[in-house]
Amino acid sequence: MTGPFHLPRDRLLSFLAEDAPFGDITSGSVLSGERCRGRIVAREGGVIAGLEEAGELFSLCDVTFRPLVRDGDRVGPECVLAEVEGLAGAVLLVERTALNILGRMSGIATMTRSLQDVLDEKLPGARIASTRKTCPGLRVLDKKAVVLGGGDPHRLTLSDGILIKDNHLALVHLETAIERARAHSCYRKVEVEVESPEMALRAARAGADILLLDNMDPPEVRETLRVLKNAHLPRLPLIEVSGRINADNIAEYAIRGVSAISIGALTHSPRSLDIGLDLDVTTAFPTR
Amino acid sequence: MTGPFHLPRDRLLSFLAEDAPFGDITSGSVLSGERCRGRIVAREGGVIAGLEEAGELFSLCDVTFRPLVRDGDRVGPECVLAEVEGLAGAVLLVERTALNILGRMSGIATMTRSLQDVLDEKLPGARIASTRKTCPGLRVLDKKAVVLGGGDPHRLTLSDGILIKDNHLALVHLETAIERARAHSCYRKVEVEVESPEMALRAARAGADILLLDNMDPPEVRETLRVLKNAHLPRLPLIEVSGRINADNIAEYAIRGVSAISIGALTHSPRSLDIGLDLDVTTAFPTR
Amino acid sequence: MTGPFHLPRDRLLSFLAEDAPFGDITSGSVLSGERCRGRIVAREGGVIAGLEEAGELFSLCDVTFRPLVRDGDRVGPECVLAEVEGLAGAVLLVERTALNILGRMSGIATMTRSLQDVLDEKLPGARIASTRKTCPGLRVLDKKAVVLGGGDPHRLTLSDGILIKDNHLALVHLETAIERARAHSCYRKVEVEVESPEMALRAARAGADILLLDNMDPPEVRETLRVLKNAHLPRLPLIEVSGRINADNIAEYAIRGVSAISIGALTHSPRSLDIGLDLDVTTAFPTR
Amino acid sequence: MTGPFHLPRDRLLSFLAEDAPFGDITSGSVLSGERCRGRIVAREGGVIAGLEEAGELFSLCDVTFRPLVRDGDRVGPECVLAEVEGLAGAVLLVERTALNILGRMSGIATMTRSLQDVLDEKLPGARIASTRKTCPGLRVLDKKAVVLGGGDPHRLTLSDGILIKDNHLALVHLETAIERARAHSCYRKVEVEVESPEMALRAARAGADILLLDNMDPPEVRETLRVLKNAHLPRLPLIEVSGRINADNIAEYAIRGVSAISIGALTHSPRSLDIGLDLDVTTAFPTR
Amino acid sequence: MTGPFHLPRDRLLSFLAEDAPFGDITSGSVLSGERCRGRIVAREGGVIAGLEEAGELFSLCDVTFRPLVRDGDRVGPECVLAEVEGLAGAVLLVERTALNILGRMSGIATMTRSLQDVLDEKLPGARIASTRKTCPGLRVLDKKAVVLGGGDPHRLTLSDGILIKDNHLALVHLETAIERARAHSCYRKVEVEVESPEMALRAARAGADILLLDNMDPPEVRETLRVLKNAHLPRLPLIEVSGRINADNIAEYAIRGVSAISIGALTHSPRSLDIGLDLDVTTAFPTR
Amino acid sequence: MTGPFHLPRDRLLSFLAEDAPFGDITSGSVLSGERCRGRIVAREGGVIAGLEEAGELFSLCDVTFRPLVRDGDRVGPECVLAEVEGLAGAVLLVERTALNILGRMSGIATMTRSLQDVLDEKLPGARIASTRKTCPGLRVLDKKAVVLGGGDPHRLTLSDGILIKDNHLALVHLETAIERARAHSCYRKVEVEVESPEMALRAARAGADILLLDNMDPPEVRETLRVLKNAHLPRLPLIEVSGRINADNIAEYAIRGVSAISIGALTHSPRSLDIGLDLDVTTAFPTR
Repeated sequence: MTGPFHLPRDRLLSFLAEDAPFGDITSGSVLSGERCRGRIVAREGGVIAGLEEAGELFSLCDVTFRPLVRDGDRVGPECVLAEVEGLAGAVLLVERTALNILGRMSGIATMTRSLQDVLDEKLPGARIASTRKTCPGLRVLDKKAVVLGGGDPHRLTLSDGILIKDNHLALVHLETAIERARAHSCYRKVEVEVESPEMALRAARAGADILLLDNMDPPEVRETLRVLKNAHLPRLPLIEVSGRINADNIAEYAIRGVSAISIGALTHSPRSLDIGLDLDVTTAFPTR
Repeated sequence: MTGPFHLPRDRLLSFLAEDAPFGDITSGSVLSGERCRGRIVAREGGVIAGLEEAGELFSLCDVTFRPLVRDGDRVGPECVLAEVEGLAGAVLLVERTALNILGRMSGIATMTRSLQDVLDEKLPGARIASTRKTCPGLRVLDKKAVVLGGGDPHRLTLSDGILIKDNHLALVHLETAIERARAHSCYRKVEVEVESPEMALRAARAGADILLLDNMDPPEVRETLRVLKNAHLPRLPLIEVSGRINADNIAEYAIRGVSAISIGALTHSPRSLDIGLDLDVTTAFPTR
Repeated sequence: MTGPFHLPRDRLLSFLAEDAPFGDITSGSVLSGERCRGRIVAREGGVIAGLEEAGELFSLCDVTFRPLVRDGDRVGPECVLAEVEGLAGAVLLVERTALNILGRMSGIATMTRSLQDVLDEKLPGARIASTRKTCPGLRVLDKKAVVLGGGDPHRLTLSDGILIKDNHLALVHLETAIERARAHSCYRKVEVEVESPEMALRAARAGADILLLDNMDPPEVRETLRVLKNAHLPRLPLIEVSGRINADNIAEYAIRGVSAISIGALTHSPRSLDIGLDLDVTTAFPTR
Repeated sequence: MTGPFHLPRDRLLSFLAEDAPFGDITSGSVLSGERCRGRIVAREGGVIAGLEEAGELFSLCDVTFRPLVRDGDRVGPECVLAEVEGLAGAVLLVERTALNILGRMSGIATMTRSLQDVLDEKLPGARIASTRKTCPGLRVLDKKAVVLGGGDPHRLTLSDGILIKDNHLALVHLETAIERARAHSCYRKVEVEVESPEMALRAARAGADILLLDNMDPPEVRETLRVLKNAHLPRLPLIEVSGRINADNIAEYAIRGVSAISIGALTHSPRSLDIGLDLDVTTAFPTR
Repeated sequence: MTGPFHLPRDRLLSFLAEDAPFGDITSGSVLSGERCRGRIVAREGGVIAGLEEAGELFSLCDVTFRPLVRDGDRVGPECVLAEVEGLAGAVLLVERTALNILGRMSGIATMTRSLQDVLDEKLPGARIASTRKTCPGLRVLDKKAVVLGGGDPHRLTLSDGILIKDNHLALVHLETAIERARAHSCYRKVEVEVESPEMALRAARAGADILLLDNMDPPEVRETLRVLKNAHLPRLPLIEVSGRINADNIAEYAIRGVSAISIGALTHSPRSLDIGLDLDVTTAFPTR
Repeated sequence: MTGPFHLPRDRLLSFLAEDAPFGDITSGSVLSGERCRGRIVAREGGVIAGLEEAGELFSLCDVTFRPLVRDGDRVGPECVLAEVEGLAGAVLLVERTALNILGRMSGIATMTRSLQDVLDEKLPGARIASTRKTCPGLRVLDKKAVVLGGGDPHRLTLSDGILIKDNHLALVHLETAIERARAHSCYRKVEVEVESPEMALRAARAGADILLLDNMDPPEVRETLRVLKNAHLPRLPLIEVSGRINADNIAEYAIRGVSAISIGALTHSPRSLDIGLDLDVTTAFPTR
């Protein structure tokens, strides 16, 4: 209950139904009530995410699940993450779904953590932020994994954050757009995507709380920050940068004055962490 | 209707609801009925998948969608995939969800096609196959993308293919397992995961239709094929190989006698294809 | 598409299914294909909300729906809001569900507008805000009605706004809580419920963006504002007041320095606006 | 299990999901495993309804729930309705949803009870009845609250009760309509809305089981009853009256011969009963 | 819109999804955009039910559907019920689901009609009634088919009809049970299952509206009717008989005084009417 | 967990909701917390199926369920299948739904077993197979019942088995169709419906794994088998026969060389097995 995101139980069950709409015909025909024990093992090091979901999946199928680490923990290769015990047919039914969740979420958390580590060193206080470029239907898990990896979830949906982008500004004047957005609610920050120092200044003067410097190279970011600073605004907006930033070039964007670096690849192209299930056969005591 | 997989409309709508549970507060407050036109553009070359879904999403929101290429087509960078036209608020509501689907599916299709191309050249008739390591909730789209990329979808779920794995064989004798699986239904092929040439031979003699040679290196694969061939079986089983095979080493596994090479990374770690929406502002004729 | 909130079609259909799980047995047995025309009429004046939903409901049942006013419009008694035309059985099937939505939403919008009018006169720029005290399952419509009535929707859910309340502060130190909340994300404002001027000052100094002055009477609100102003903070937090404020006493809370007044009764106890359907019988041309 | 209505568990869970689609970001970031105890308290007197639902909601989130009164009980102000104990994050997650349900249902039950009390005194045996003017999606709870308040639920949906209204009679002759309705099923009573004593008599003679005297003033009701009585029918139909009847004028409608008085405001405009959660902090024993 | 029961569109779509969760792999791989025409043909005579649902299914998949008869019509063998035209892949996708619905519903309607015909001749005014012994998940269609066959749907669910059975009476006194049931609502008839003439008389005197004579043979039914008649009750309750009544013995139960004969087999064991789809190949004009 | 098919919990709950959307008004008004015990009894002999589902339904409503036989067991008349114990209101709420499932599934299993027995005697190794002619929404249970009765489930959906039928062959050449189907996936058997010995031979030569001899009489089946055998194919395809085969004529189709006999009536027209619930009243200890 301490983590910020939770997935409804029926979504978890729908994942099992997706993988076994008519049950597991292999275990169903081959097994006959055997029980087993197993260990969930990280084949490589990383930040673990998805244990809560995996545990609930196994529990929903009456498999005992004993976590040995916690979501958000950084582990080394061959670390045993959890033990499971129950009917072999149930363990094997859940196995793939649980590992698919663990692999994806841990992959996202690991990548987030790794990039956030760079910022923590080069630009303390700045945050790696995620985007809305998540897997359709999996945003809750993707955003949760980002948070477990130490990242900032950014807006969750179109309903909870205001971000005025170039497409809006092609249709409405910058100042009008910001005024209308601020009139929507005083409880939300207004973020505006800007393309130049001049535009940044206009947006800041119109009341933007956050500026998104999209696809600017580091010198452009610096110039924009300089222009803003020199304008002696009553309050400097927060600065987010984005656009083709990755592990190779992130250090160049760790510029004083930047509050957040958002990276779509965190969730649109994460590499799954390699996690497997090693089964131990218990002294056979079939249930039927 | 010609493609093999389709996603129910309510799943597509649930993706929109996931991204805008209370509507789009930015467009909702900033816009006032403007219309627009736009082009969906592949920023890099690849095999396109997901246009059918993207088109349905836009149509469900009363945005006109005109596809210019078809799912499964190979395109070059900057190729315009489709044109959209409608209320700006509707176009922007759908944009991210549609691009998330297009990016993921095209990424999977592109990777599949690229690996299948190697087989088509080195081992004609052999197939790149996918696994059950898909995104939870997205298996239909993941498998569809594999097929559009020219791959073999393999079993879709635990309910429709029999695959006896090491975990089963730790609990039940090989021959017993195969006999029970064959007794389940005469309409399904029985596949067995084997670890050695001897085990392969036993499985083949017990009636396995397909052998999965998991984590064998190319010489082991060759030796297994040799042993099977020399056994003068009435019918040789199909051979699938798997285990850490990727673009770098796939050519080494293109061994005569192999029918399929399955690759989990196709669906557990695809790189999203970079696809964007370029908006044209139409001469403004607000609807209210 | 211009309003900020939308309800998924399947939710609308579920409302019809709730009212007619096995169809309408009265119309089903009594009618035989008659067509009819009707007018949706406001029996009393108010701000209209829910026409978009009502229109979609009728359309989903193949009833032509012609709106004559727009959501958000203020109308007088006996105003005809829309005309409908179609099979009598379809019109009568939708009637009650559509009117239930229109009545509740218009009731909320009307009450919101009426209170916001007081603020617009007494404290220009300040906003009537709603709370999470909505009808279970209907928050989207309740919040939409608030916006249509000119109110501020405030946070939509526990997931999209940070509000540290007395219950949290019974468990965690004020400064610690604010620090942790700010660390969650730089994209969200942090709001803190405070009980005294001293606590307000502490929260402001710790970085709260908004202070909720709950259950303070007007003199206490004034004193808190005075204390904050005299503290020469780099930036004054926004001030929200709440607690048993209604049409009778709202003017007393229209104090310079207050940004928002939140009122639970807007959504937990709205009086439904009286809206009915008057049916005209068309020259009978039964469809069977 | 003794009450007549129950809400499916997934509907209750959907209410939680509505309020926390991505979890509770305040508790999630501010708390760290604290436990707490609390009391659910009625701030004002009334008839309690919704404790069963509230209890199930807390239980579903692993919060211990100990009810101290029962649904349907009449309580005074400051009455403690139940105690809760569990993880603070879980208690706070459920709090608002549970209170929203309790407040609405208790408001409906209290109003129903108060009006039924008038009938119990003035016209023993007659019933306060509810209508289909319920909150979309909440009819089960609204009708249950009416029953807990001592009222008659009337028909639940268009599928389970026959009520021929003026709109039907504009399309079909009265006698024909009644004949067709009676032919539908012998298991249902046929109710007809009538506008005059003459029409009441025609409907009774045609076999109506119940007459709805809509918008008649008390003298008209009396005259209709007199006409029916003088007609020496083999069996007098039951009489329901409705139309702008409320606490102020209900006594005037407590006329001998009336079986039920139906009141839309019971469910379309109930005032929520003020119920809150008072939290006690337990000696801190964080779970992590 | 004239029939009394309707199935929500998402339920119909769920039937298609059940039959093709990953699309139709045969048509998907074999066909390439061919169009076709076809006729839905009753291979044997009967009463048709389910055309409305079949038509909506085909329409949802963009197949033109032209009904040639109507639900409830009695047809002879080889009667063409409807024509379809569209993409062959779409027609074949829907075919089986549509025929499954048509076959079951028409089977129920045909059996109902055939038994009702006996009553219409032997005991005019009496009704064949169905029970709650329907297919789980299909009650709406099962009850609709009964009505289309001329039967009485009886109560639809446990929520909309009161039937006090032997199991209740083992726990509560007959008179108490009836009194409590009548107190629930004045809008519902109270039915009581009785086992003897004496019990029937007690129930009638206690105010039962309907008596269910379960598993009585014809002489017992007659004796019960005689006892009731001789009791000079102010109003005779309706009489329903049930229990192992079928086409062979129904005439024996056509006893004056009986209002309804309920038959579980109508819906728990209907024989599907044989209905098929004959495909015509149109001059080939593939769509791709 | 040993059976091959499982139904998601929410589907089971939806069956209860279908039967009691607003609860059970009879038990709700008549009972007051009584507990009871009962026995589920097969009124006639047969093969039992559905106990797992019935047990889960009762458990979900907090009724203790003790099975005395297992799914798949053959029992005689009056066999007690299970005991239940709990609140009477809960037992009666579940009763009908549980019995509806048990009756249908056991009816299917019994019919399947009875036909499979004939094959086991006359043609050992051959299988009774089911079709897609199942109840919409109930395919999982229908197929599971077939398996419990000893039958072969055949393909489950259009997505998991390839069957090229006459309708496909009207549009595409036989050899082309088979080639395309084989190219879809190497993991699936390709089945082709054939109408004559010549067509059977062509299909076999083109690589069909299974031939469906539809509507052939026994001599035609024999002739087809003879032609295939004489063709000296490298591998004989499996042979399935279908078309108006039933208990009366199945022995004639028990021809050496036939692998499976598929029978639509197994699932489109099963006779429900008569199973009831006998209630024992426990010494009354009401819970309230």
